[in-house]
Amino acid sequence: MIAKGLPASPGAAVGRAIFSSHKAIEMGEGGEKVILVRKETSPEDIGGMAESQGILTSRGGMTSHAAVVGRGMGKCCVVGCGAITVREEEGYFEVDTIKVKEGDTITLNGSTGEVILGETELVEPEISDSFKTLMEWADNTRRLGVRANADTPYDAKVARDFGAEGIGLCRTEHMFFGKDRLPIVRQMILAKDKEERVRALQKLLPMQKSDFKAIFKVMENLPVTIRLLDPPLHEFLPAREEEIESVAGEMNVSIKVLKDKVASLHEFNPMLGHRGCRLGITYPEVYDMQVQAIFEAACELAREGQKIIPEVMIPLVGHVNELKLTKLQVIKVAEEVMGRFGVQLNYFIGTMIEVPRAALTADEIAREADFFSFGTNDLTQMTFGFSRDDAGKFLPSYKEKGILERDPFVTIDQTGVGQLIKMAVQKGRAANPKLKVGICGEHGGDPLSVEFCHRAGLDYVSCSPYRVPVARFAAAQGVLKEK
Amino acid sequence: MIAKGLPASPGAAVGRAIFSSHKAIEMGEGGEKVILVRKETSPEDIGGMAESQGILTSRGGMTSHAAVVGRGMGKCCVVGCGAITVREEEGYFEVDTIKVKEGDTITLNGSTGEVILGETELVEPEISDSFKTLMEWADNTRRLGVRANADTPYDAKVARDFGAEGIGLCRTEHMFFGKDRLPIVRQMILAKDKEERVRALQKLLPMQKSDFKAIFKVMENLPVTIRLLDPPLHEFLPAREEEIESVAGEMNVSIKVLKDKVASLHEFNPMLGHRGCRLGITYPEVYDMQVQAIFEAACELAREGQKIIPEVMIPLVGHVNELKLTKLQVIKVAEEVMGRFGVQLNYFIGTMIEVPRAALTADEIAREADFFSFGTNDLTQMTFGFSRDDAGKFLPSYKEKGILERDPFVTIDQTGVGQLIKMAVQKGRAANPKLKVGICGEHGGDPLSVEFCHRAGLDYVSCSPYRVPVARFAAAQGVLKEK
Repeated sequence: MIAKGLPASPGAAVGRAIFSSHKAIEMGEGGEKVILVRKETSPEDIGGMAESQGILTSRGGMTSHAAVVGRGMGKCCVVGCGAITVREEEGYFEVDTIKVKEGDTITLNGSTGEVILGETELVEPEISDSFKTLMEWADNTRRLGVRANADTPYDAKVARDFGAEGIGLCRTEHMFFGKDRLPIVRQMILAKDKEERVRALQKLLPMQKSDFKAIFKVMENLPVTIRLLDPPLHEFLPAREEEIESVAGEMNVSIKVLKDKVASLHEFNPMLGHRGCRLGITYPEVYDMQVQAIFEAACELAREGQKIIPEVMIPLVGHVNELKLTKLQVIKVAEEVMGRFGVQLNYFIGTMIEVPRAALTADEIAREADFFSFGTNDLTQMTFGFSRDDAGKFLPSYKEKGILERDPFVTIDQTGVGQLIKMAVQKGRAANPKLKVGICGEHGGDPLSVEFCHRAGLDYVSCSPYRVPVARFAAAQGVLKEK
Repeated sequence: MIAKGLPASPGAAVGRAIFSSHKAIEMGEGGEKVILVRKETSPEDIGGMAESQGILTSRGGMTSHAAVVGRGMGKCCVVGCGAITVREEEGYFEVDTIKVKEGDTITLNGSTGEVILGETELVEPEISDSFKTLMEWADNTRRLGVRANADTPYDAKVARDFGAEGIGLCRTEHMFFGKDRLPIVRQMILAKDKEERVRALQKLLPMQKSDFKAIFKVMENLPVTIRLLDPPLHEFLPAREEEIESVAGEMNVSIKVLKDKVASLHEFNPMLGHRGCRLGITYPEVYDMQVQAIFEAACELAREGQKIIPEVMIPLVGHVNELKLTKLQVIKVAEEVMGRFGVQLNYFIGTMIEVPRAALTADEIAREADFFSFGTNDLTQMTFGFSRDDAGKFLPSYKEKGILERDPFVTIDQTGVGQLIKMAVQKGRAANPKLKVGICGEHGGDPLSVEFCHRAGLDYVSCSPYRVPVARFAAAQGVLKEK
């Protein structure tokens, strides 16, 4: 072992150290086993992560981008390995006096966080009969439903095989990062007016529709919660000088135009910026396209005789009026599509509860919502005032000095964040007794947090596909501990 | 009138348009009347703002840096004037076809937000006898105390003259930006180890001490709440390439060392980053120096027979353990100093309530605190999930579409943020009946918010010195409306 980071996603991986997603894709597609090594990953790295055996980052915590995506992909991942210095552009990383160059073989242990020089022999995992028996017992005991967070048909399939009873969070932005999509998304962002923006969105429509159709098919008879576009738009644009130049060339716009756009979209605190339903409110045409894609996909399958249960989820609501306005817009498009297809779907419109104000005013919001889904990652960030991407600078000393017993991004903080959750469940159900309540943050796969959700009376938890068995088990333990 | 922005700080100003703080200081000191025009201002602009007649920015809202500092200085200020394009480096701004170059004279109306080309005649304001009578009536009626936010002896004097009954917020970071201080602060940040850091802090100590002594003197017999260092450290370092190069030269360090430091301090969401008591916990020596300066200043004056009432305020507490740990540290230094001087001061240790979690767990926190002071700017940011620096991109359409009736950074959101305040007052007083409760956010000078604070049972509001009369008046109206 040459270094140790945080065990962000379990499993083991052997491969050649590679320092760019671009190269990882090239080598991965060529059949090479690679491990993507980065300071940290961003949505643009998704392709490279998918082609890698494992991911290693020097920065970030248990809910950093690399960790969340790694777990979602069921891919071995070690993050926040501060002992290594990654020089992406020079193509090597260093630990003390050891220099690991591009192409050198390393092994990761995602269950312990260990980084090992050279190749280590791996053992394929097997699912034993006793595992199946245990899961049956758990399912017969638990009251809490278990869903999965899945953005692709593949993830949805894995989730279903692991016993997920629906999708609790399908993040549509991941579909916008596909190689064939990103250029169109960028056209949409650079559009001079609404008309031009709508033209770009029309090109995305058939792609989004086929995405949803494929996921709905896998999840037939089970509910699928689709979250409308959430991240700030600058995440889809390049940030570094060289990238801006090359993207401007590809897009056939001047470097100045692209730079001005990047500058105008710059935010001091993107986490608290122009994202979620705020985007849907300032650019209604974006959500219109997504809703149209969802309902056209569902109607086509319904016509073929399949039972599809779409749940449209509106992100980042903090004030009931945001939900009211966006909901009217969703209903309008949904009804138009169903009318056109002559199909009546049983669909639901709900909201994430991830802004503290939403929890505080859950009674008002519940009157407009079919369901609540707690986005506990963001709720934890805002309730503590911790940016998950930056907290690595002080959280370690917080644990060391006994200020926090546990990382609140791993296990739900019951006193603070949990208080908001309980308040929202109570106020929400009092105002709307039919309200369905779940959680789709990363905490949905953490045993202690699952037990808390059981006690708080939630209807379901939703977690990464590979954590579904853990959640089923923890949900049963919640019941047993009551006795 | 050539453009209209937000009326961030009332009054009127005439002067030559100047695009850098550096130039504004040079010309202002030379006796010229200038107006500082910037895209937005940052703490490094404070010197230039002080030398200007007025401030005009193209970005930012009613609680942007320019607005808050402008009000604090009692300086006419127009912000968020999106119609103008500011080219700081080229030295001009544009509105439609009009180009205003460096040195051209403009007039600002801070009460309406108007920007006027050329010189307009100004009228000096006068305080009439009826104003004084009205204020006497208000003071005889109100229950709520009124303090001021003041960081300098000058501000403290203005505040006292306007009837402030103490300082509710003295921001120590503003003292770190002084010309003679900043280089030492930067040495402290670049220190290789604790020892080197302590050496730099020892150089700051006498300066901080004289700052506090001067403010204490002005506020004799009245309480002075001093907030320990709050902003993230990168605010004290240069950000742009050219600046980094010149500062590296001044500091006699290599450009690489400075760049690496800037990079290592970079944060994705500084608002939710390594700041407030998180700094005090990771670098206890910083708070130690500040507390030593506070108590040495107070003890020296006490020896001269003055009555000094220091209140040490710990920022950004979200968990009671943060307060516990920091409080112990404050007590240790305070007792050491008082022992050395043979003086026993009546001092208090309290906390800002600005993180939602602090309000939710106010009972736990109140057991460790002598006072709470609601930092409603940050509390609004985190409760809504709005970055005040970025919200300008969607807040206008939120008002237009009727989602929000009022800008929550101007008038307190009673349903959401107000709910947290009421909860914290209730829980806090139940756990500690002696708890003193105030507010020191910008809302402390907004009449509707002051009335809310009265109804919520707060002990005092604290606002910019120039808004003290408004707060006294609104506090009286709160009482009258009860009847």
